[in-house]
Formats: sequence, structure tokens, C-alpha cells
Amino acid sequence: MVVVMEERASEEQIQRVVAQLVQMGFDVHRSTGSLRTVIGAVGGEGKHDPRLLEVLDGVHEVMRITEPYKLASRTFRSEDTVITIGDLRIGGDEVIVMAGPCSAENEAQVLSTAAAVRRAGAKVLRGGAFKPRSSPYSFQGLGEEGLKMLRTGADAHNLKLVSEVMDANQIALMDGYVDIYQVGARNMQNFTLLRELGKVRKPVLLKRGISATIEEWLLSAEYVLAGGNTDVILCERGIRTFESYTRNTLDISAIPVVKKLSHLPIVVDPSHGTGRRDKVAPMARAAVAAGADGLLIEVHCDPDNAMSDGAQSMYPGQFERLMAELRIIAPAIGRSICQEPVARRGWGQ
Amino acid sequence: MVVVMEERASEEQIQRVVAQLVQMGFDVHRSTGSLRTVIGAVGGEGKHDPRLLEVLDGVHEVMRITEPYKLASRTFRSEDTVITIGDLRIGGDEVIVMAGPCSAENEAQVLSTAAAVRRAGAKVLRGGAFKPRSSPYSFQGLGEEGLKMLRTGADAHNLKLVSEVMDANQIALMDGYVDIYQVGARNMQNFTLLRELGKVRKPVLLKRGISATIEEWLLSAEYVLAGGNTDVILCERGIRTFESYTRNTLDISAIPVVKKLSHLPIVVDPSHGTGRRDKVAPMARAAVAAGADGLLIEVHCDPDNAMSDGAQSMYPGQFERLMAELRIIAPAIGRSICQEPVARRGWGQ
Amino acid sequence: MVVVMEERASEEQIQRVVAQLVQMGFDVHRSTGSLRTVIGAVGGEGKHDPRLLEVLDGVHEVMRITEPYKLASRTFRSEDTVITIGDLRIGGDEVIVMAGPCSAENEAQVLSTAAAVRRAGAKVLRGGAFKPRSSPYSFQGLGEEGLKMLRTGADAHNLKLVSEVMDANQIALMDGYVDIYQVGARNMQNFTLLRELGKVRKPVLLKRGISATIEEWLLSAEYVLAGGNTDVILCERGIRTFESYTRNTLDISAIPVVKKLSHLPIVVDPSHGTGRRDKVAPMARAAVAAGADGLLIEVHCDPDNAMSDGAQSMYPGQFERLMAELRIIAPAIGRSICQEPVARRGWGQ
Amino acid sequence: MVVVMEERASEEQIQRVVAQLVQMGFDVHRSTGSLRTVIGAVGGEGKHDPRLLEVLDGVHEVMRITEPYKLASRTFRSEDTVITIGDLRIGGDEVIVMAGPCSAENEAQVLSTAAAVRRAGAKVLRGGAFKPRSSPYSFQGLGEEGLKMLRTGADAHNLKLVSEVMDANQIALMDGYVDIYQVGARNMQNFTLLRELGKVRKPVLLKRGISATIEEWLLSAEYVLAGGNTDVILCERGIRTFESYTRNTLDISAIPVVKKLSHLPIVVDPSHGTGRRDKVAPMARAAVAAGADGLLIEVHCDPDNAMSDGAQSMYPGQFERLMAELRIIAPAIGRSICQEPVARRGWGQ
Repeated sequence: MVVVMEERASEEQIQRVVAQLVQMGFDVHRSTGSLRTVIGAVGGEGKHDPRLLEVLDGVHEVMRITEPYKLASRTFRSEDTVITIGDLRIGGDEVIVMAGPCSAENEAQVLSTAAAVRRAGAKVLRGGAFKPRSSPYSFQGLGEEGLKMLRTGADAHNLKLVSEVMDANQIALMDGYVDIYQVGARNMQNFTLLRELGKVRKPVLLKRGISATIEEWLLSAEYVLAGGNTDVILCERGIRTFESYTRNTLDISAIPVVKKLSHLPIVVDPSHGTGRRDKVAPMARAAVAAGADGLLIEVHCDPDNAMSDGAQSMYPGQFERLMAELRIIAPAIGRSICQEPVARRGWGQ
Repeated sequence: MVVVMEERASEEQIQRVVAQLVQMGFDVHRSTGSLRTVIGAVGGEGKHDPRLLEVLDGVHEVMRITEPYKLASRTFRSEDTVITIGDLRIGGDEVIVMAGPCSAENEAQVLSTAAAVRRAGAKVLRGGAFKPRSSPYSFQGLGEEGLKMLRTGADAHNLKLVSEVMDANQIALMDGYVDIYQVGARNMQNFTLLRELGKVRKPVLLKRGISATIEEWLLSAEYVLAGGNTDVILCERGIRTFESYTRNTLDISAIPVVKKLSHLPIVVDPSHGTGRRDKVAPMARAAVAAGADGLLIEVHCDPDNAMSDGAQSMYPGQFERLMAELRIIAPAIGRSICQEPVARRGWGQ
Repeated sequence: MVVVMEERASEEQIQRVVAQLVQMGFDVHRSTGSLRTVIGAVGGEGKHDPRLLEVLDGVHEVMRITEPYKLASRTFRSEDTVITIGDLRIGGDEVIVMAGPCSAENEAQVLSTAAAVRRAGAKVLRGGAFKPRSSPYSFQGLGEEGLKMLRTGADAHNLKLVSEVMDANQIALMDGYVDIYQVGARNMQNFTLLRELGKVRKPVLLKRGISATIEEWLLSAEYVLAGGNTDVILCERGIRTFESYTRNTLDISAIPVVKKLSHLPIVVDPSHGTGRRDKVAPMARAAVAAGADGLLIEVHCDPDNAMSDGAQSMYPGQFERLMAELRIIAPAIGRSICQEPVARRGWGQ
Repeated sequence: MVVVMEERASEEQIQRVVAQLVQMGFDVHRSTGSLRTVIGAVGGEGKHDPRLLEVLDGVHEVMRITEPYKLASRTFRSEDTVITIGDLRIGGDEVIVMAGPCSAENEAQVLSTAAAVRRAGAKVLRGGAFKPRSSPYSFQGLGEEGLKMLRTGADAHNLKLVSEVMDANQIALMDGYVDIYQVGARNMQNFTLLRELGKVRKPVLLKRGISATIEEWLLSAEYVLAGGNTDVILCERGIRTFESYTRNTLDISAIPVVKKLSHLPIVVDPSHGTGRRDKVAPMARAAVAAGADGLLIEVHCDPDNAMSDGAQSMYPGQFERLMAELRIIAPAIGRSICQEPVARRGWGQ
């Protein structure tokens, strides 16, 4: 902590600050300049609220000098975390694409979409069974029925499965179905949920809250890591800004920033990040070009009749074209994308 | 819903939109102008996602014409909701002040603070037992022990009690202690929690999320109302903006806006709204001047040694002075504030 | 400047930073802790870009310890600046209200509005002759014709006049008409204009840019002050946030913040701050309750037929009622508002 | 314009709205549903302020149905605008890179940097002679001296030149030097300047204001276009959000949005968009992947000793590597980037 005193601060005020810092357990270094005194405090930071010093008389400003998170920081671990699920590696050289419908609706829809995304090169099936919706009157998901369909779809096409958990009491139930627990943006600071996910031994994909700073996001990851679960995947999905043309503003610059601050892998969700199908492909390309470790994309076999988020779901043909573009881009930064396992049979729509 | 077609939209494109709207269950009115066609759709809105129309060819823009919330709207109920807890009325002529410490720390602290806020004119004791904290390493509250202390403090000084519930599984436990359940900003879209609070029969104080639009806030209130609990108190506590000098930007204009859109009472939390003790009094005065139905203020008998949020907690003497100022302001808009029950004995600090 | 090194920073990296700071002209203090080294640099700040240090290897963070503005700061001048124009004092005990139409449209409109605002207690007439408009197709003001009307209106009712200057080349022309030059939000960083206004000897009312931080705002004031013009009035008029129900979010908390950082008077414009007539009165009351030195309010004798901003202009009767409310509020913080010079004759609309 | 009436709106209120719309010159269509009346108004929009209707009694909401800009819109011109300067085409298949120092400092610096960027494949030299700076105490540029150096540097290496114009009275002077006038973010709504640039016959590169919506940005372009200058290049350079880790948040999604709304070319400035050298390359790659027509990048032959923006200026070697990466990415979307005119001789730093 660095405490900058006001120019006119009295010796008594300075002593009061020093005393407070010592009481907090800090080692104190005092620098007296011609204009002002600056007090450096080293030690037990993280536990203390800098505002307690800010409100003391004569204090001009207080600055923290360590991040409040530890296990999520590159300072703690300098090499990249690579998360392994069977033969899948997230955070390595390959850019991993997770794709599928917003919600599981029925078996045919899940199977058909799973087949389409697998054919195009996705490695993980995404799909919701518990849906957090702004309005109580919107479709809220099929629950366990949906999870069964998703697991069947994933197994049928050799895909891993990621699905959203909305509440701590769903964890046990979901454990029989998912490979990755997804925490939605609205739950990024649901600390009860995060704490419980720290106890499971499956990866957690943690979406950034719509107005969360990168520091708050890493602090939420810290809740999971501190519980003993080291497999956290960060997911940028758009932040709220004054611009309302797109649903959110996808913060592509968060990718290089997170890469510097943390060792955790980061993926990007351009579907929620833009809210409109026609903006998904450009933003997915941008994310890979900027260094994302993966993508989370909504694809639906029949978006026009989807029960939720149809407007931001890609047609299978669009998704296939996007994957072909990404295979050109990834090598520019030394990465690869899965080749299509079977021959392409026309673009579809 | 109003669908505005592009200037060059073809008849086929227009027909496609009309067909979709009819399928969604709308009555359709078509207006053909010299430049463009505008299609009005009346009926089952709220259930449908306007973006499904936005992505159709030839569509320029889609606009909703009804709010997605119903029970929270002034259209549904034109007179103000007044919430009654014993002899306390929230939303009536009297401006209700809720005050107390951020967290319950020990019995002496709670009793001393309760006495001080009661003496100054508060009617409700606030205080946390379950604390949502950004960092897993911060003080997380005393749990049930804290609730006991708070209930004792409230009863000793004839105050009602409001305290935060963080998770649906805490509701049953808290029911024995609190008069008002507080939902924190981070949980404004914890829909599992909101749904459960719709089943209780005590008022819910719902804080606005740090980046929630007013519409989203009212939709979250709708979750509680739709469950059958009609007693929701809205609480503005600051939104996140680019300005970082204050912790948040307290959105005072939300007061008149909410008063127009909804019949629910609205209170303001200037402590979290600013994050700094020296900004609390000006913003509390502003809130009352703008028409707030109440205030939620952090007061601590010894803020310098508080275990959380000490920097934004008022000294008892500051709080007493503020109450005196508010008693001058409230009559400007035809309202009152509780007179001090006992003689004032000096300002303290 | 304080430079915090990374935990693993090498001695060479530390030496590189020290050398750079010395080259920049700073005195350097080095504190070596068990985990990290912190380097304090005192001296010629303000001239240097901290990012030049941020990009050096081994640097964790760089923090400025002085504000980049000087003349605008309370550190430079601790007592409040009171600006005098004839018998008018802005920044003293009296809250000064400036009111009038968005634009001068014709002589009758200006005279009628001036009479109305004077009767209600305003001391300054506001009105535009040069109008910055987002669209090139909107009404752009009457130019010098408008200035003449405004001067005539002000003189007829013993009011001072404030009007907007859009470009440095309008200053000379306007000098014959206005008492206060207004700089609009869009021009807050038009440095050519600010520099020229530093040379005039009339007060400048400087509106905050729609997304300007308080620091940037004070730096723009510094441009005027550095030119030798000490009479700057700051004007908060709303910032841009994600919330779109109101046109802008009026940042009431900027009032106490500016009062702490600067000695300059601050007034508030609730008309542009909200964009809607029915929100002006609550926000005007809030501004006075929070400590504003004055208000800038759009009033029009016939808002329904105004050529610009009619929707946010008050009717004379509404304005009169507001002034009566403000007279109740101001004493709560030891201030006053001008009494009506003539007997009130009913409210009008 | 579409006016949605409140559910309880009376026939008188509806008639009042219809009368107002007719007076404004609109054709009016009235749709009466079981719950509410919706009034469609077609005709002279753009000239009218929708808020004039919003404040009428019984009005629930007013929505515009046409964009307020015309010449900048794809509705006005459906094919892409390609701007030609000699043999350079901006907005065609080739992605055009403009690079150079923040400010011209001396002849050697300009020549050396020009040589470096040309060698790497840039087609336009960027560099400032008039510098808008937040602080009056910062370096403000060399003025005409700087323009001479830049012209010399551009000519020596067969580059076009883009440089910033800060005030309308600089246009004539600059005409002898520049190929493209740059309007900075802070001047995006300096309407006096825009209007004058509508009269010149050279392209204008118009940066997006730090908090400008895309609509406001296109309206500012409209000022130039309406003056008769059809050659406007839009430049995204980051918007202000709550996230403060990066200087601004570069809005990559603005690229596909602008491409849909307008026919004008759009380039991206990742240097100002991030403010940090190590974030420039990822964001430049992202911009090209998302479909930008060009880039504007700060490169300096010696960034450590730059007089302004050194921290965000690339080293020549970094820039060369970036160009190589972009040559891999561009073909993914059917575009190209200039091949290096001379053999590469090692990366430099």
C-alpha cells in the first residue's frame, strides 16, 4: 500500500497514518519530499481496505501495490495452465471450439446440432438445461430432461459437454452429466455457488459479469481456486457500455490483458457478446486473431424456431464457413484448429 | 411490437415478417408509406424475443411497445404501494431511514449502534450477517450468531430489522430473525433466490445491480411479485460508470424514473453508492430532495475499527446532523421524517 | 510517481527504471521489501507520461502521486473562489439560478421568458445563439441576431447573460453581448477555444464533457486558468452511462467531489442532465441539497412550440414552483436563494 | 415516428398527439388494439425531436423509424465507397496500413520512421504537428515545422500523409502538406470544423469520439458529406467504459456494425484504442480479422525517447512482425495486405 499525504499534511496526521499502518501489520517506509510525504507499506495487504486510510485527515490518496488475487495470478504461476479432459487440452496450441444450441429443446434438435458442430470441427457440445432469464415469463429450460439429451448428443458424436449451473444445489445432479460446469455472467459473484464449485473436481468455465472489471473476474476465479479446484477457464462474453447497437460490447482486449495477468486459459463467447447472428463470425475471427484459447458459439439446427436466443444462433452452414476461416487465421499466431473429421458435404444454408 | 422494414424491402420479405408475427400469435396492422412499410403487431408480447424478427431479411428495426414486466408496472396498479410492517409504513408520507453497521461484529457494537441510530430517528436497523465479498480472503460475516445480535439490538430499541440473504437455502433460517429480506446488488439476477423470495410473506428490499438497467431491475422485482409476494422495496445503490473517483455513481435520477414506471417504493443507499463517508450526507440529502421513500445508511459506533466498510460508515454524530438536515428538506416535497424520540445530547464526533 | 516492480524483477530491471526516472529529472527513493521493490520518484511530475515506465520490463504498475492540474486544485488555493459580476456573486452563500430558453428564437419569446424567470428569482438569463447540434439538418441558432435579443431581454429585466461560444473566432463578436461565456460539453476539450478564453476577462462556464472524468474536466479548466483568466465556473450536465431511460445520468456526486478537489464554483444543469421536463425539478432539488453553487435551467414561455429542446424546457409556472421548493431546501445547508422581487400571481400552467 | 400510447390514454390525449404529428407534417396511421393505441407517423422525420411527443400526456413511448443521417447511410448508397488518392484505394480489397510517429519531433526521426513503416508495407505515413493534449503543460506539437518534416518523410518514401487538424483556421495551412485530414476523437463534434472540412476536396479521416454512439459518429460524418465532400474514412479508436486496465476499450464490433449501416470505409487505431504497445498487435490482428478496411498505428524509431505516446508506439521490428501476421489473416476474408517492397533484413528489436 502506498499512502500519499496532502502537501499541507501535518506531522500529527502523518504519525496517525503510520500508526494505523503498523497496527494493520505493515512494514512502513517513509519518504519525505520537498512538497509531500509518501508512505510505503509492505506486508499483509489484501486483508485490508485501503479506504480506511483514505478517510484519515491529511491523506491525499492511497494506492494498492499488489493484486488482491493470488492463485489466479501469473506471479503465483508463470506457465500457462492447460486443462485436460480425457484427450482434450484447453489452453494448449489448439484453439478449442465449443458449440451447440442455447437450450436443449428435444432429442432430435440436440442430436442434429451435435452432429453438425462435430462435423465442422467443434470438440465440446454446449447447451443449457437450466436457463437464467431476465423475465419470469420466459422459457426456463428443461432441467434434468435437458441434461440427458445433451449427454446423449455429446456421447453420440464424441464431444465433451459444457452446461450452465445456476445454483449450488444443482451441482450434485449435474455431476452425472457434464464435463465442464459453466457459471453464467449473472452468477459471476454468486459466492455460494463459486465456493461449492471449488470442491468439485471438474473444470469450471467462468463467464465475466456484464460489468465486471478484470480484477473482479479474477477474484471470482480465486474463489474456485481457493477451494482446491485448479481448473478454471475464463470466458469473455461482452461488457455493458453506452453503445446499444450491439447487445453488449465484446471486450476483445481482455484477451491479451488476461494472458498477461493470469495463467488461466481464456475463451470467448461471440454469440452473447453481440446478440446477433450476423456479428458472430467477425467477432469469432477477431477473438482467435487476438489470441483466445477457444470459442463458445451458439449453433442451432433450426434457429428460426429455437425456443431461446434463436437470433444469435448460427445456421450449421454458417458455422462451417466460420471454422474454415478460423483455420486460416490460427496459424498467424502459431495455433491450430481441429480439421474436419469427415468430408464436407456442401455448406447447407 | 413494431417492425420497421428497410426502404428496399421486397413484398416477399414483408410477407415473411407478417407470417412470423401471425405464427407468434400477434394481430398485425400493416402501414405502407411512400418510403417504407411499418408493421404493427399487438398481442402476446413479452413471451417473444424481438431479435427473432430483427435477423429476417429486409427488416430495419424491431421495437417493443410494452414493458416486459407487468405486476411491477404502474399500468397494472396506478396508486403507490405502501408496505406495512407493524406500525411502520414504507412508501407513505414519511421518509423511512434504515441505518446500522455494515456487519454485525459483536453484541456491544450492535447495541451501541442501534441505540445511536434510533436516537437520531431511524426506524429500521440494517446490518449484515452473511456478507458477499469480492475476495475469498475478506471477512464473510458471523452467520446466525450475527442475526441473533441484530435481532437483539433491534428489539432493544424498537427498530425493525433488514438483513441480506445471499442464497435461497438461508431463507428459512433468517425467517426467525429479520423483518425485511435484503437482496444485494450482486444477486439481483439470482433467479433461484428471487423465486424463493416470491413465496415468503415478508417484504423484500431489492438492490439494483451495479449495471442493471431500470427495466432489468423491475423484471427482477417481477420474479418476486409473480411468486405472490407483493411487498417489494426497490433500492438504488449506485451504478458502474467510467468515473472512478467515487466507487459507483449514485443514480439519483432513477428515483423519479421509477416513480413514473412503477408503484413500488424506492429507497436509496448513499453509503454503497459513494463508498466514502464524506460523500454520504450530500447524497442522502439529494435523494430525499429528489423524492426517495427512504434511505439505507451505514452507521457504526466506531468506524475506524469496523471489520468491513468502515470507510463508508458514518459516525453517530454525523448521522444525527444529517437527520436534522433531512428534516428541513423533506417538507419541500410534502414529506416528513421521524422526530428524535429523545432529547439530543450534543453531536458526538 | 511510484513504480511498483514485479515480484521477480531483476536488479538490472530495477536499475533500468531508476535510470529512466533520474533522466526524467526525478529524485528517487528505493524501498526493498521481502517480496517486491517499490520506487518512489518525487519532482517534475505532470510533464511525464507514466506509461513510459509501465512498458519497461519488470514493472508491475506505475502510479501518479500528484494531480496533473495545479491552478484548479484546492492544494493551490484552499479558500473557495467567488466570482463577481457587478453585484452578482457566484460561489458565495447564495445559490444562483440561471434560466431561460434553449435558443433565442424571436424578441417576444426572449422578453417573455426573461420576465418569467426574473419574476421567479433567477439572476442570470441563459439562451443560445450559436447551437451545436448532432445533426447538420437541425436548427443551428440565430447567430448575432440572437445575441442582440438576449442582451435586450437581460437588460430589460436586470439579469446577467450567459450564452454558448462554439469557436474561438466567435469570442470577439460575443464580447459585446455576454457576461459569461459558456463552453458546451462537446467543446470541453476544444483546446484552441479554451486557450483563447484564457485571454478574456469575463467568466467562463465550462460544462463537463459527456464522458469526461472529473480530472479531465479540471484539466480543461486549467487551460483557461493557465491563460490568466481566474473566473471559471464548472457545470455538471450529465454523463453517458449504459442506462438509456434518461438522456444522460446526472452525476450529483460530482458536486461534493469537485468541492473537495477544487476551489472553483460548480453549478448543475438538470435540463440537459435528464432531457425530460418532468425530471428537471427533482434533479434541481437534489443538486441544491447536495451543495451546488447554482443551477442552469431551460425555461421557455411556450415549450410546446420551441425550436429546440422543448421537451426539456420547463413552463414558467413549473419553474416558479421549483424555486419555491428550493427556498425551503437551501437553508438545510446554510444557503439561500433569491426571494421573488414581485408578488407571485398564481402558478400559471 | 411511432407513438405508443399508454393503456389508459383517453381519446382526447390521442387526438392531441395526432394533431401535433399533423402539424409537424407527418402522415398519420392509427392502430387501435384491445389494450393500447399505436400511432404511426411517416414523412418529415429527422427534423423533429421525438421528445416533444414523449412529454405529452398519455404517451407511453416514442420511437424513431428512420436514422437521422442520410448521405452516410447504406440506404442512400448501397455499394461500398472506395476513396482514391493517386494510386491508393481505401475501402477496396487491400487492407491499407497507415503508420508513423505520434508527433513529428525532428527530421531524422520522421525520415527514419517513414523508411521503417514503408519497408514493412505501410502505404500512408501518420504523424501529428498539432497535438490536442488533455493538459496545458504537455508538448503541443511543432506546428508547420512538423508538417514540413512529415511531407518530406512521406515524399522520400512514396507514402501518402495523414495528419490531424484541430481547428478550422488550420485547414488552409495544412492544405499544402497533407493528403488526408484527420479529425481527432475530441473534435468529433466540433461542428465548425466539420462544416469547413465539408468544403475541402481531400479525404477526411474521422475518429469516433470516446463516448460517441455509432449514430452520432455517422451524424458527424454527415456534416462533412452534406458540405459536398464525399470522402470520409471512419476510424474506430476505442470507447470509454468502466474497465480501466486498458486506456480505452477498442470496439471491434463497431466494424461489422458500421459495414451494415454505412457505405463508408472504416479503419481502426489500435494504438490509441489500447494505450499500451504490448496490446497493439493482438488488437490490430483482431481488427483485420473482423473486416476493417485499414489500420492506423503508431510506430516510432525510438519509442523510449518519444515526446508523446511513446508507451503505445511500436518498435519498427514489432511492426514488421505484425505486418507478416496480418498477411496470413487477411486472405481468410478475401483481402490482401501490401507485400514488402524490399527484402526483409532481420527483425530489429
